[in-house]
Amino acid sequence: MYVIGERINGMWTDIKRAIVEKDEGPIKEWTDKQITAGADALDLNVGPATSEQVDALIWMAEVIRGMNAEIPIAIDNAKWDVMKEAVPKIAGPKIINSSKSDPDALTNYCGLAAEHDCSLVVLTIDQRGIPTDVDSRVEMGATALTMAMEAGLEPDKLFIDTIIQPVNVAPKQALAVLQAMEQLKIISDPPPHMVLGLSNVSQGASERELINRTYISMAIPAGLDSAIMDPCDTDLMNAAITADLLLEKMIYCDSYIEAYMSNK
Amino acid sequence: MYVIGERINGMWTDIKRAIVEKDEGPIKEWTDKQITAGADALDLNVGPATSEQVDALIWMAEVIRGMNAEIPIAIDNAKWDVMKEAVPKIAGPKIINSSKSDPDALTNYCGLAAEHDCSLVVLTIDQRGIPTDVDSRVEMGATALTMAMEAGLEPDKLFIDTIIQPVNVAPKQALAVLQAMEQLKIISDPPPHMVLGLSNVSQGASERELINRTYISMAIPAGLDSAIMDPCDTDLMNAAITADLLLEKMIYCDSYIEAYMSNK
Repeated sequence: MYVIGERINGMWTDIKRAIVEKDEGPIKEWTDKQITAGADALDLNVGPATSEQVDALIWMAEVIRGMNAEIPIAIDNAKWDVMKEAVPKIAGPKIINSSKSDPDALTNYCGLAAEHDCSLVVLTIDQRGIPTDVDSRVEMGATALTMAMEAGLEPDKLFIDTIIQPVNVAPKQALAVLQAMEQLKIISDPPPHMVLGLSNVSQGASERELINRTYISMAIPAGLDSAIMDPCDTDLMNAAITADLLLEKMIYCDSYIEAYMSNK
Repeated sequence: MYVIGERINGMWTDIKRAIVEKDEGPIKEWTDKQITAGADALDLNVGPATSEQVDALIWMAEVIRGMNAEIPIAIDNAKWDVMKEAVPKIAGPKIINSSKSDPDALTNYCGLAAEHDCSLVVLTIDQRGIPTDVDSRVEMGATALTMAMEAGLEPDKLFIDTIIQPVNVAPKQALAVLQAMEQLKIISDPPPHMVLGLSNVSQGASERELINRTYISMAIPAGLDSAIMDPCDTDLMNAAITADLLLEKMIYCDSYIEAYMSNK
């Protein structure tokens, strides 16, 4: 499981305040905590903290680069103008998060990712909105793979996000996402990565952590190999590690969780 | 999820002693506890407590029938002579647990189940032993379904157990079982039930409960709709209930776990 830590997001009060006041403390704290907890990459999302999105992304990235030159940074922003400006200004390994699946968007984002040797998250959303069925997700994922490869981006650099919605408002989508991943994971060899913004599944629900860790256990056999998630939720991390173990992605030993963490 | 409580088993010291001393206390205690925790049926296994297997099974069943006339009792024994004698002497709804998949065994067990209107668990094991591949499991499951229907046993009365082995000794089998269930769940409409002796997956491992609840979450999307398991492991039950929720087998409400339990 390739874990993209979700916590540096301006939707949280401490991060919002840190961005507004340029206080490096909370950025450093959550960089440290998430990497220690097993994050392979860190998502950066300015959220509602400020309209100066590019400046805020660059500032956060520079705080992190001052601590760790090599951790991949997922630049999480929906606006092309922001992404286009921010990507060249952030040092080190990067993940562009995210493009939609319209051909125009894919042309722009795949080109940017290839030019700067970044990974790219593509959402299976287009101008029609979030799909409610399996086939639209698969079709958009296939388009993303084709256009990524044409742009010179290898499947290993592509993360397809089949869009999980809250179980309490879109109850049929949890299964549709599993079925879409089942199909997309065999679309090429090697396949693109399958990623989800995991905590969306439990948005607004009462048993959030239980729903998150149950769904990740269900999604890993379907092909999920990456998630934007909370690495500091130990039960969630342990579920993901154990699902990988049960699919023989690692060798059993009694201390397999510690072994996984020490391999980071 | 159809939960078959595993706890009344002579492998446990308290049950073994209860059987030897004909002490109804522990049998009653675990009947109560397991039903309260959400068991739909109770497995009875004499284990190493005594060689008088038939007598012990009948005694345990009578203790339970004195408390609850209607809870299905899974008579868990590998010997045909024991099963043949015990089944007619145990009142109320019953599950025969289990037959192997050899045609001779299936002829006997399907006949017994049909004659006494019991459900039947069939293991995908034959004279060659436990299969190591997917195809043998599917082939044996298909044979079991065919012979069950010929004997007059509807698919709804058949529980196919594709045999999960400990992850620390047979690491490839957890995935093979998922793949076998994926195929068997579409073999007929309605399909037979898919059951596992869940705790086998973690036998001898250090993180037993974590492995059990992760595997049940993985297995439910693959088709698992029943397990011989510990209903008193609340985290395990919550994982199974949540997996069912995420597959829309129930409608979301904030108190979906309580709603599930009160529907028992």
